[in-house]
Amino acid sequence: MINKVFSAKQLDEKDPLFNKAEAFSLPNDTIYLDGNSLGPLPINAEKRASEVVKEQWGEGLITSWNKHQWISLPQQVGDKIGTLVGAKQGQVICCDSISINLFKVLSAALKMHPERKVIATTRNNFPTDIYMVQGLLDLLGDEYSIRYIDENHVGAQLTDDIAVLMLTQVNFRSGLKLDMKDITEQAHNKGILTLWDLAHSAGAFPVQLDECNVDFAVGCTYKYLNGGPGAPAFIYVARRHQAAYKQPLSGWMGHSSPFSFSPDYVPDTSVKQNLCGTPGIIGMSILDAALDVFDGVSLKAIDEKSKKLQAFFIAEAKRANLLEELKVVSPPLDNRGSQIAFAHEDAYAICQAWIAQGVIADFRAPNILRVGFAPLYLSFADVEKAVSSLATIIKEKHYDQDIFKQRQSVT
Amino acid sequence: MINKVFSAKQLDEKDPLFNKAEAFSLPNDTIYLDGNSLGPLPINAEKRASEVVKEQWGEGLITSWNKHQWISLPQQVGDKIGTLVGAKQGQVICCDSISINLFKVLSAALKMHPERKVIATTRNNFPTDIYMVQGLLDLLGDEYSIRYIDENHVGAQLTDDIAVLMLTQVNFRSGLKLDMKDITEQAHNKGILTLWDLAHSAGAFPVQLDECNVDFAVGCTYKYLNGGPGAPAFIYVARRHQAAYKQPLSGWMGHSSPFSFSPDYVPDTSVKQNLCGTPGIIGMSILDAALDVFDGVSLKAIDEKSKKLQAFFIAEAKRANLLEELKVVSPPLDNRGSQIAFAHEDAYAICQAWIAQGVIADFRAPNILRVGFAPLYLSFADVEKAVSSLATIIKEKHYDQDIFKQRQSVT
Repeated sequence: MINKVFSAKQLDEKDPLFNKAEAFSLPNDTIYLDGNSLGPLPINAEKRASEVVKEQWGEGLITSWNKHQWISLPQQVGDKIGTLVGAKQGQVICCDSISINLFKVLSAALKMHPERKVIATTRNNFPTDIYMVQGLLDLLGDEYSIRYIDENHVGAQLTDDIAVLMLTQVNFRSGLKLDMKDITEQAHNKGILTLWDLAHSAGAFPVQLDECNVDFAVGCTYKYLNGGPGAPAFIYVARRHQAAYKQPLSGWMGHSSPFSFSPDYVPDTSVKQNLCGTPGIIGMSILDAALDVFDGVSLKAIDEKSKKLQAFFIAEAKRANLLEELKVVSPPLDNRGSQIAFAHEDAYAICQAWIAQGVIADFRAPNILRVGFAPLYLSFADVEKAVSSLATIIKEKHYDQDIFKQRQSVT
Repeated sequence: MINKVFSAKQLDEKDPLFNKAEAFSLPNDTIYLDGNSLGPLPINAEKRASEVVKEQWGEGLITSWNKHQWISLPQQVGDKIGTLVGAKQGQVICCDSISINLFKVLSAALKMHPERKVIATTRNNFPTDIYMVQGLLDLLGDEYSIRYIDENHVGAQLTDDIAVLMLTQVNFRSGLKLDMKDITEQAHNKGILTLWDLAHSAGAFPVQLDECNVDFAVGCTYKYLNGGPGAPAFIYVARRHQAAYKQPLSGWMGHSSPFSFSPDYVPDTSVKQNLCGTPGIIGMSILDAALDVFDGVSLKAIDEKSKKLQAFFIAEAKRANLLEELKVVSPPLDNRGSQIAFAHEDAYAICQAWIAQGVIADFRAPNILRVGFAPLYLSFADVEKAVSSLATIIKEKHYDQDIFKQRQSVT
């Protein structure tokens, strides 16, 4: 048994973010290690949900589009997100889903690079990213193709026939974190436009879109940004590209003058062109309020605490002799996002047993137990309890080994 | 002065839908004639908003995807909408916005008709419908074109080079209602696929998608379906087309097996293929509850009451000698949807003055005062009061004639 250097209690006492958990409405007796799938409910967001439904919609009716500025909400929320991903004002807008936003950016980027016909991405990217490329290319015809590159040594695989390089900064399964600055620079050296998916980045650690000279980015808001289930996504178009940018989902809200009802589409010349249909105001209002939990908190502090939580989890797991059975398949701490992936042949069953004990983590096929660390509401004491519970489950085989086979036959 | 045949009181007493207004949370002292822009808040929806936020998201966290069946919500809500638009189960799904859904259907329909390169629509269609065609064609290249036809005598303008005929059943400005059955049949005689936009139809009167043999339809849910600001839209794909249908916004939720995370997109063979990214659960849950106000109500009864309300409005306006100044520009009662458009050079200023008196209607450029009739919560007494208020405003010029010029200079 390895002795602890610091106890959970000591670590919590030194934690400058410790009190932030009060900003969330978390269920009792639950340790939540799945904020990287769906962040919990911020108390602010709960209040705003009631306000937007009862007061703004119920009382204000149609007049709330102006009175409560629903009409400018996508930009307002976009700029708030911008401050969390290193983007100066006017480059981020909140709209639609990541999938749809990828389609917009990819289409626009191909138009900006008419002589190039290749979109490059990693084969182990999150499936929807790949699917959206496949759907677009199927529509555009045989002239275009997708090229799969390996997530290691991306730079060495870049060639000057690639129009767009689409990468997810943090791999959803392993947590591998790519070097945004270096890869973007190498892509630019080959004349390639970059599109970064920030699904597992935004709100988890400092992202520097402007500083890294990124061209385009998309991201979701229901993970580390705690915007709620299926909350609207966002899109970043670097200011230098906005004039040339033209995306094909040209709905009326992206028109330069939507309420003139002119018969021809004239794209807005700002990031607002990414709006398409009428935005879902209730979901976006809730997200707007949810983002306020980041007020006065630096992403650097969040990142530092995440690294400490992760290290503490690993240390505790090691102390409990768990790491022989539960194999860490994530890269080292400095090369991964705010999550750890463990491989175990019974990962699904273990995950279910852990959930039954009040510790919510996630399973990713075929054999990954995925543990997410969201420093705004997770304490070191939580981690200690979670590992202790996991140790009991694994050591004493307190789980149903057949459960995964059952599940497989259902899906 | 023309005498009334029936008083508002008498008409309200005979109205079988009179008590339905209790299902809505309507502000006091407001008469709402703009339910065709944004329906009011159903009390059920308010309850559900609180439930989905506090209990399902707040307490259930990620487990609610299964526990509260978020995952099947798009189909569940789609089928509910289906019953309101004459579609048998499994043909309607709730997702995204009308604009995005138009893009899906138009792309898929062109693929199903590879030898035809024309999309036909009316020039005075709602702008976003036209814009979405323009965006798609811009992406596809010069081979394809849009052809504008006149909304009168549509059949006579149909030729066998047209792949898809995209029409909005009720014109957003004039209220003109097209003959869905007749036009669809004439289109089919020329081998043309039909795509109907039900924005101003769904929830307003009986729509018979199956019976009219419609191929595809889209619609929004924030007007007569009272789903809330920017509530998610829907899409109808006739069962006979589902096997051949392939839409390009191929996000993971439309995959035949989304959670297998397979690297290649395999479209679901049902209407579910129209799902793209993760759906906005809060907005869709609210819509789900909002639709319950239609329980036990027939669309026929709604349509009948709408016609009576409209006739009563016109009769009252005539009694007040308003119809010389306020010119009806909508087609006759049987050829229009649940709205009346009046032309007046000061329409914007009159609309603003009316709103100040507690009567909310809508202005549509350049000179249209648009009055919507939503029979679930509008009474004949409301109509009487609304016309009386309008008469005072117009007869005594109780409005600011310069207000529109000011507005023009702002936009």
